[in-house]
Amino acid sequence: LCGPKMWLWKGTLTSSGVFLLQMGWGDLGAFGEPSKETPNLDQMAAEGMLFLDFYTANPLCSPSRAALLTGRLPVRNGFYTTNGHARNAYTPQDIVGGIPDSELLLPELLKKAGYTNKIIGKWHLGHRPQFHPLKHGFDEWFGSPNCHFGPYDNRERPNIPVYRDWEMVGRYYEDFKIDLKTGEANLTQLYLQEALDFISKQQASQQPFFLYWAIDATHAPVYASKQFLGTSQRGLYGDAVREIDDSVGKILKHLQQLGISEDTFVFFTSDNGAALISAPRQGGSNGPFLCGKQTTFEGGMREPAIAWWPGHIPAGGVSHQLGSVMDLFSTSLSLAGLQPPSDRQIDGIDLLPVILQGKLIDRPIFYYRGNELMAVRAGLYKAHYWTWSNSWEEHGKGIDFCPGQSVAGVTTHTQEEHTFLPLLFHLGRDPGEKYPLSFASEEYQQAVEHISGLVQQHKATLVPGQPQLNVCDQAVMNWSPPGCEKLGKCLKAPESDPKKCSWPH
Amino acid sequence: LCGPKMWLWKGTLTSSGVFLLQMGWGDLGAFGEPSKETPNLDQMAAEGMLFLDFYTANPLCSPSRAALLTGRLPVRNGFYTTNGHARNAYTPQDIVGGIPDSELLLPELLKKAGYTNKIIGKWHLGHRPQFHPLKHGFDEWFGSPNCHFGPYDNRERPNIPVYRDWEMVGRYYEDFKIDLKTGEANLTQLYLQEALDFISKQQASQQPFFLYWAIDATHAPVYASKQFLGTSQRGLYGDAVREIDDSVGKILKHLQQLGISEDTFVFFTSDNGAALISAPRQGGSNGPFLCGKQTTFEGGMREPAIAWWPGHIPAGGVSHQLGSVMDLFSTSLSLAGLQPPSDRQIDGIDLLPVILQGKLIDRPIFYYRGNELMAVRAGLYKAHYWTWSNSWEEHGKGIDFCPGQSVAGVTTHTQEEHTFLPLLFHLGRDPGEKYPLSFASEEYQQAVEHISGLVQQHKATLVPGQPQLNVCDQAVMNWSPPGCEKLGKCLKAPESDPKKCSWPH
Repeated sequence: LCGPKMWLWKGTLTSSGVFLLQMGWGDLGAFGEPSKETPNLDQMAAEGMLFLDFYTANPLCSPSRAALLTGRLPVRNGFYTTNGHARNAYTPQDIVGGIPDSELLLPELLKKAGYTNKIIGKWHLGHRPQFHPLKHGFDEWFGSPNCHFGPYDNRERPNIPVYRDWEMVGRYYEDFKIDLKTGEANLTQLYLQEALDFISKQQASQQPFFLYWAIDATHAPVYASKQFLGTSQRGLYGDAVREIDDSVGKILKHLQQLGISEDTFVFFTSDNGAALISAPRQGGSNGPFLCGKQTTFEGGMREPAIAWWPGHIPAGGVSHQLGSVMDLFSTSLSLAGLQPPSDRQIDGIDLLPVILQGKLIDRPIFYYRGNELMAVRAGLYKAHYWTWSNSWEEHGKGIDFCPGQSVAGVTTHTQEEHTFLPLLFHLGRDPGEKYPLSFASEEYQQAVEHISGLVQQHKATLVPGQPQLNVCDQAVMNWSPPGCEKLGKCLKAPESDPKKCSWPH
Repeated sequence: LCGPKMWLWKGTLTSSGVFLLQMGWGDLGAFGEPSKETPNLDQMAAEGMLFLDFYTANPLCSPSRAALLTGRLPVRNGFYTTNGHARNAYTPQDIVGGIPDSELLLPELLKKAGYTNKIIGKWHLGHRPQFHPLKHGFDEWFGSPNCHFGPYDNRERPNIPVYRDWEMVGRYYEDFKIDLKTGEANLTQLYLQEALDFISKQQASQQPFFLYWAIDATHAPVYASKQFLGTSQRGLYGDAVREIDDSVGKILKHLQQLGISEDTFVFFTSDNGAALISAPRQGGSNGPFLCGKQTTFEGGMREPAIAWWPGHIPAGGVSHQLGSVMDLFSTSLSLAGLQPPSDRQIDGIDLLPVILQGKLIDRPIFYYRGNELMAVRAGLYKAHYWTWSNSWEEHGKGIDFCPGQSVAGVTTHTQEEHTFLPLLFHLGRDPGEKYPLSFASEEYQQAVEHISGLVQQHKATLVPGQPQLNVCDQAVMNWSPPGCEKLGKCLKAPESDPKKCSWPH
């Protein structure tokens, strides 16, 4: 339920930026979107390195973002639920949990190397006071703690606040307009200006920086500024993509004009696959891949990804390294000359040898849904231990994570266990996960034996974190965020009544 | 049932080449194939112009090739059947018909401007003596009249011959080996060498030329040379694609080394969408599009397309012009300074204003299946007047043109008529044809009214050609092609017994 990111460094230390959005693998021209309306992102790819086998850590936003900032799988950092088997969970307004203090976030670590850290856009790691991004290493924030659904009535549910640093400066729909009918909102322009200003300020003070640009225009309710409305072949979603593409181009150009592009490592990716439930008006494209957001098929977790660092990354590079958003944690630390924490398991790897020397590092990709390891990729093979799209009940309500797609025994509407005889796909010959390999083939047996060994090793050393996404309480919603008094925007919270959260997917 | 093409010119007149293969829209890295293994074709696109909305004239090879060379829809040039409603037909060995003498082929016309014309690879416009390519304007031929299924026993059915100009020089499987088990065959290398030699010869004699490079490695049975076997992430099909990509690169480089690249217009495209029935081992990718070969959904008829002409086409161009293989007829004539025939309807348009000046020409795309107009595209709207993938009976045998895809009421297994209330899709917002627009919407009504007008106009002026693909006869197969005596390869034909051909799809 979320969207892109960015990081940037500068100085003797290298700055870094992550653009993190909700976009599908197939949404960029460089990745084959037929309208090809992302000239700036395509140019970024042409000047940098395209990752074709890059994954998020979870098919949903909150866990994916927590994984990016901690370098750890959601099942370790607590961003999962045990309320139901293999259920996706996130941080809606009534969530009680959030990022635990025990987790070390990338900005906390970068601070030790003199970095100034800013998040622009959606945080999504919990909105209660102890989870505030400025308590977890960020120095500045302009954006929201949650997603921007609404408008709400401020009685049953408050509209989502927008923060500048410690205090709120208004609410979505009230002070930050979104016209649901036309899709007009100027938020991306505000977020763009914030990014440009922050970069200018850091350049002027010669301080290295980390910028996490986590905007939400491609997340339902999708929006775009007036100047972009109606400009895409793809409708409103395409308008939003065009505005983001334009913004990315302006940020990269700004780095160049300030003369710091060679000191700034930039990465563009997404927190989950395109939300096909919102298609076609508000949903993107996962290209040739199966299904979308919420699922552990390729459409749910394989992401567009571009690394850009002029003068360091050879232009026009293409990598088949199996990468993960968690690698941005380790790679960023490496760029800053820091070691990752040694007291805990880190799932991310340092991608610099891949990016700078074209190496390929052997490592698996684990596809989790909530508390369950659904699938594992090693090399070009992917083994599914569990398959599920969503329940018959939800499907009957018209919620479809795989619209127009149906692979017998694969896109199942009951949770199907394949632990003892996993479904195996060869993602080179069959990127769309349509043709399971024969159980009897030698190829099957060799690949599954190899992957089973990786799974055993993974499970034997896994220490699950305390699940943060089990308990919900209407009382913890964004009724009275800090700063609400000055604005006259404090709302009355109901009595506390903690309950198990319900996660249908 | 066919594959890519190419044309090339040179001299004061511009030479031209068409690469024509069977490849899907999504098979090239430039079009988003996740393995991105086509560096030469991607480079060709980067140096030339990528067409994202380019169509073949039919979802099957013979009619599509006849349309390319005549500039006319198959329903006009006779490459269709009336044996069954909306059935695809082609030119198997027992077909009696072929390209009528009354049709004017591109090489016949180019001859008048001093061109030397060569076809390398699959002809597929009929194999009886009167249909020989050298009787229809080509000066040279190295290749086959039919597809290369087999091996046959030479009693029930002969192996397909390979011609050099007027006479056969051997047969597939016998003299031109294809190892069905390993997929090894060196045919693409032979075809490559033919192309290089022809270009060298033409350059030396300063004669303008037209080269039609219609190789068949990506058509079942898919094959690749030993040096390419096992080199792709995508299996055998990917190996074949890599060899073709390598060959295209070598041909373009040859033009550059001879100093004639600026005098040679080159176009790369495909004759139908990827054959998903052959996937995954022998089938390609149609990217985000619905279904594949044999169907009039986008996966069956939208094709990869690249125009290349250094010094004339601005590098890195992208066009959304609705284009067709039939336009290569008109464009080639225009390049040669010739007028298209005025005594008949030509469906192709001259793309030079699009390619050289970036213009967009308003024109519809007609999607035929056999004798039926199934769908029409105008702008971003596509109206389906008939929907059908294949029959329940064929589907029950495991023949699936839409594997893993199913859109209710769209990918139907009965022929569904929508003439009075067409299914309408917006291909910008919904390139995968999954979300028909509401019949009640104003958008629907306006678009359908516009398209209906185009259909009326089209049908009112349509003069169908004499159908060539109705009659089959075992006696007309390639038993004793010219030259068979010298090789001792003449076979005994059975008695003539003409019958209606059976077209299940």
